[in-house]
Formats: sequence, structure tokens, C-alpha cells
Amino acid sequence: MFKVNDNYLKLPGSYLFSTIGRKVREYQEANPEKKVISLGIGDVTQPLAPAIIEALHSAVDEMAHAETFHGYAPDLGYEFLRSAIAKHDYADRGCMIAADEIFVSDGAKCDSGNIQEIFSVDNKIAVCDPVYPVYVDTNVMAGRTGTYDPKTEVWSDVIYMPCTAENNFAPELPKETPDLIYLCFPNNPTGSTITKDQLQVWVDYANKVGAVIIYDAAYEAYISESNVPHSIYECEGARTCAIELKSFSKNAGFTGTRLGYTVIPKDLKSGDVMLHSLWARRHGTKYNGAPYIVQKAGEAVYSEEGKKQLAEQVGYYMRNAKTIKDSLASMGYTVSGGVNAPYIWLKTPAGMTSWQFFDLLLEKANVVGTPGSGFGPSGEGYFRLTAFGTYENTLAALERIRGL
Amino acid sequence: MFKVNDNYLKLPGSYLFSTIGRKVREYQEANPEKKVISLGIGDVTQPLAPAIIEALHSAVDEMAHAETFHGYAPDLGYEFLRSAIAKHDYADRGCMIAADEIFVSDGAKCDSGNIQEIFSVDNKIAVCDPVYPVYVDTNVMAGRTGTYDPKTEVWSDVIYMPCTAENNFAPELPKETPDLIYLCFPNNPTGSTITKDQLQVWVDYANKVGAVIIYDAAYEAYISESNVPHSIYECEGARTCAIELKSFSKNAGFTGTRLGYTVIPKDLKSGDVMLHSLWARRHGTKYNGAPYIVQKAGEAVYSEEGKKQLAEQVGYYMRNAKTIKDSLASMGYTVSGGVNAPYIWLKTPAGMTSWQFFDLLLEKANVVGTPGSGFGPSGEGYFRLTAFGTYENTLAALERIRGL
Repeated sequence: MFKVNDNYLKLPGSYLFSTIGRKVREYQEANPEKKVISLGIGDVTQPLAPAIIEALHSAVDEMAHAETFHGYAPDLGYEFLRSAIAKHDYADRGCMIAADEIFVSDGAKCDSGNIQEIFSVDNKIAVCDPVYPVYVDTNVMAGRTGTYDPKTEVWSDVIYMPCTAENNFAPELPKETPDLIYLCFPNNPTGSTITKDQLQVWVDYANKVGAVIIYDAAYEAYISESNVPHSIYECEGARTCAIELKSFSKNAGFTGTRLGYTVIPKDLKSGDVMLHSLWARRHGTKYNGAPYIVQKAGEAVYSEEGKKQLAEQVGYYMRNAKTIKDSLASMGYTVSGGVNAPYIWLKTPAGMTSWQFFDLLLEKANVVGTPGSGFGPSGEGYFRLTAFGTYENTLAALERIRGL
Repeated sequence: MFKVNDNYLKLPGSYLFSTIGRKVREYQEANPEKKVISLGIGDVTQPLAPAIIEALHSAVDEMAHAETFHGYAPDLGYEFLRSAIAKHDYADRGCMIAADEIFVSDGAKCDSGNIQEIFSVDNKIAVCDPVYPVYVDTNVMAGRTGTYDPKTEVWSDVIYMPCTAENNFAPELPKETPDLIYLCFPNNPTGSTITKDQLQVWVDYANKVGAVIIYDAAYEAYISESNVPHSIYECEGARTCAIELKSFSKNAGFTGTRLGYTVIPKDLKSGDVMLHSLWARRHGTKYNGAPYIVQKAGEAVYSEEGKKQLAEQVGYYMRNAKTIKDSLASMGYTVSGGVNAPYIWLKTPAGMTSWQFFDLLLEKANVVGTPGSGFGPSGEGYFRLTAFGTYENTLAALERIRGL
């Protein structure tokens, strides 16, 4: 008689954004006349940039003729895309990352969920608290997190690194030594970031204790301050301790087009086993490459035209971020983030829980945000708004919040 | 100190098709003047059909405007595609599969590799021998297969079901009771198939012993005989024991476009746990949907124009299959498959091993095929050729083989 993976049954409730989606759907079905504005899930609203559209059309045309048709992609991704990434995202910033250390994928969510698989189930993970739920949930599914206490919302075998107003939302080195450390800067959900010097401390620590940092740099394009690192490989020694995840979703609007990549330097080893080889084996066995047309679209992200158009797009969202932050502050809310990140993190008013504020916002203002507690126990009492709406909707949402 | 997933280290050698790719690359680098023809990896060569190209262009145009732009896709896939699948692949064949029992993905390889994850590591798998390597390799990575004997090429905890000339390449019910049974018909690599009555025996067996059948129907479009089932759900009782995997790669040329789906009926349960819920949770947590433009392309596969064009495409490849089979037979080779499948399975001549014949074919005829032993111990002494080349290349390859 077959048995299921019991670890799945330990997961409390459903995936955060699925729950939010269901709540909004139910509210809309009960109140079809209301126009709900979402500043909740981190989905973009601006269309793909012209340079990307052009690349897509051209790649589609290639697929229409036998001479230029593309079947299975190379395991690691097309050379044209990996070279563009190596040049623009790394070499141009003084980071030594070779094209064959880059694994093209269908997005950073999948990679951040799957990467734990190449590590032993005995390894102990450390996560920021609050944190993007995928890091913890996928480790739960793998049986790496111990037992769950529904009262404290804490897993017995996970090292939580609180990120609160007290430490300016920057995690401190954990007391207990972890094997895998998930870091995400600019941070989702808090919108905070750390300086290159602060990140260097983490790299040195990981090298010292023999831990791997899984560095999620999905929001890198939103960095506006000069002392904030765009890649962990800007830090000395990162090649022996860090894996970096990157997304095309937020810098280029690929949430519905799906493209990302993972960097595993060949210097990152356990004994003489390269993590690069293990991930290559996983990629080759369980994955079949991102679509050719999407990889061509990804290449256009690095063209001169593409870069210019996307800088404007990021600027558009960052105007939203500034508007949200300034408006909420003027209403008396305590807000952070929004300077190097598309996320604004606010303290819920009047001691409300995160979900109470979610319900209030949905029902009274018809605005959707994300409850901070959905990201971990230290997120309780906080709330995340995203800058990814249209400017008009963002203004309208703020007007409604002002009217609460 | 972090540790790696030791199960990965148990994998012998590299993924079969990566090895073949490397061998061919090395041969080409050493002999740049030779024109190698590949009838090896199951990659298609015909361009995407006009109806699909049109759908892609139109979807790309939608992505260019804010009003019609698409961000994150629904967890399970777009309703328009799931409904089309439910109608054309199931309802029209008298199978009861609801749209919300269909999970759209980026391909059957990923799904067939990931599906084992929702089951306990204690579960015992049964596979046909020879078999598509992904089924076994992904179970090795999960720690479900015991120890490997390099001499016999057998895993201690896997139930092998030999498919040889003796049983007409159809597996017999295993003596030891498995928990998970991987079946693929039309079969990769042997090109054989089983009748609906034969498949019903498997469904009855699975229901009796409490096993789950993971049914890979990736080659369904190639069925030409009327007593061969297109879906396992044509069999009575399959809704309580079977998961079905489907691909758009072989019926519509999506090897480089990436689309597939998995069906998990809500009646398939362990106690009161629906496997449907577990897979939904995995999809929601570790995956972020197939690209909108690719799902629109998938919808076009079911349009009147699309169906007509793709029937022609399948016909084109099946002419290759018939040509390969008839030619090889006329040369004295023992061949099977190729009637309901794009694969021709041949006995290597003169007692050669599969890899010896691979090397001979590569070096003397500059033709690439796939060594049968790469698919499992019972594949030794066999060789797979695919019908996915162009007609011209197929003829040329056969001419070269005739000249050996």
C-alpha cells in the first residue's frame, strides 16, 4: 500500500499567496460591485518592454521554420543568454562568474524551492524572520524542519533570525551554527537591505563555519544606494560559500513569462564534490530548460534598448514606492523599505494583528496587501505593500487608506 | 559544516542523454568535416505548426499592453487551457476528468521527475526494464532505490519488470508488490504498446494491492491501432489508482517550447489525503506556472486548424518510423516498435553491446542513436532509433547504415 510524503501533512494551512487569492476571490464574489486594488502579491502590472516584445516576435518566427527551429535547449541554458548574464550582471561589476557557472531556469521561485534538494536532510537551515515562505515550506516538505508549534508558529529545527525595527530589519549572526543560510537582499518582505560591509561579515562567517549562503537577489534592480551590493560575489570569499538566485520577474516584468537563473561557483565544494555538479545533475535529470523564445527575451533584457526601457520601468515602480512610503508616513504610519526595494513594510495601527489589518483593508478600503505574519512570527504586527501596481491604482489605494 | 545529499553521489555516471551529447560533441570536434545525423535523443525537427505560431504572436502582442498583459499564472494553469485539455483529451474519449484535476506544467520530464516527491521515501517503485532513465534516477536522488550493483546495473530496492522480445516488450505483473508503478505506453524506448484489456489488468492490480500507477502517455498521439488506449482513464477504476502525465513535446513539437500536464483525479487517496492536494501544494510552493504565451500556444493545439496541422506533423514522423522499420528489416535487423510510437527498437547485430553499436554507428556511419543499455539492464543488446529526424536525414542515415 503506497504512502504519502508525511512531511507535506505538517505544513500548516496553504501557501500564503494562495490563501490571499482565495480570500480576495471570496470577497469579490460576495461584493461584485467593488473594485479591489491589489498591492499584495508581488506581481507586476507594466507590459513587457518593446525590446523584449521584439525579441519574442523574432524568436517565434524562428520557431516557424525548420532551419531556425529550436528543440531541447542545452541543459544549463543557451550560451547567448549565459554569456550576457556573465558579462552584464557579473563581469561589468567586477565579479568573477563564468558563463558555465550560471544555470538558466524558469524562475527564482522554482530554484529557491529546489536548491535545498542537493543538500543532506540533516542540514540545519537558518532563515530571516519574516521571510519569503518558499524557503521554509520547501524545507518542511523535505523533512528538514522538525515539528511545528502552531502557537508560536515556529519549527523546532529551524534557526530563526529575527529582523525587526530593533535591528533595523538586518539579521544578526545566529547563536546556533547553521548549515544553510537563506538571505534575501533587497529583502522580501521588509524592503530593507544591508551594505556590502555587512554582507561581507556573513560571507566570512559562512566560510568560517562551513555553511552555504543561498542568496536571493531577485530585487537587485531596485537598489538605488551605492553602498548596497548587487551581488554577493562582490564580497571576497563568496565563491567558496555562496549560491546566488536571480529572477527576471521584477527587473523585466517576467512574472508571467518565467525566467531566472542560479549561480553556483565551481569553488563551492563539500570535500571534493562540487555543488555545481550536483545542481547540473538535477537540472539535467528533472528539468528540460526554459523555452527558447523566453531565453531570447532574456537576452533582450541586456541589450542597450532593453536596459534603457527597463530602467524606466523600474523607475515607474520606484515612484510608486516613494509615493506609498511618503503618504503612509504622512498619515502617521510607521513605514520602512521602499528605497532599494519595491516593498513597503508598515506597522499595523492600533495593535491590530496582520490578518486583522488585512481584513480591514480588504473590506473597508478594498485594498489587498500581504499580512506580515504570513512571512513568519516576527512579521506579526506588520504588513507589506508592493509598488508593482499602476501609479493610478497606487494613488487610489492610498486615498482609500487615508479615508479609513 | 553543510553536507550534500548523498543519494546524488550514488548515481552512476551522468544522465544518459548528457553522455550521448558529450560523445557526439567530442566526435564532431575531432572530425569537424563529418555530417552527423542524429536519430538519438527524442528531439523533434519539424517547426511549430502555423496555428501555434499565430497563437504565440498574438499572445506576445497581448504582453505588450498593460490592458492585456499577464503576470503570474493561476497555480494549476489557465482555465482556457485546462478546459481544452479536459474536453479534447478526456471528455471526447469518454473519460471523466475535470478541468481542475489537470495541472499544467512546463513538461512531462519535470513532472515525471517531481511526482515521486509527494510519496513516502519508504515506498517501493516498480519500473519496466528498459525504461526512461528519469523515473529511476529521480528516485535514486530521493533515496528510494537502495544500493547499486555496477556489475548487474541493478538497484537493490527497485522492482524491475523486464520487457524483452520474449514477452513482446509488455511487462508482467511483478511478484513482489510495489507501491508505485511507472508505466509508459506507447513505450519509450521500445516503441511497444499494450491493449486496453492489458492495461485494465494493471489498473485492477493497482487497485487490489493499493499501488499508484504513474502513467506516462507522452507518445499518445502516435497511436494508430484502435485497441490501444490513449489514456489510462479509459480503464475502469483508474480514477482511484492512476496519475497520468502528458506532454506537448511529441504531438506538437514543444520540446523547446515546454508544456505538459499531469492529471490527478480527486478520487486518488491515501486514507483521507487526496494526492491532488499534495501535488497542488507542491505546484503552489515550488512552481510558478508555464508562461502565458506558451499556454496560449497550447490552446491552439486543440483548435480545428491546430489539430489538422498536427495530424500532418505526426504523419510525417510516422512515415519516418515506417521507413526506418522496413529498411532495417530488409537489411536483416530484428526490429520492433514504430507502429504506435515514434521509436524503433532493434537488436544489435553480431552480439555487440549497445554501446559498441553506438560507437560503430557514430564512427562508421556518423549516425547517432541511443544505446538500449542506457535504459536499463534488459536494454543491453538493443538500440533505439527515433523517427523525429527529417525525412531526408532519415533516408540518408538508413543509406549509411546499409553501407556498414
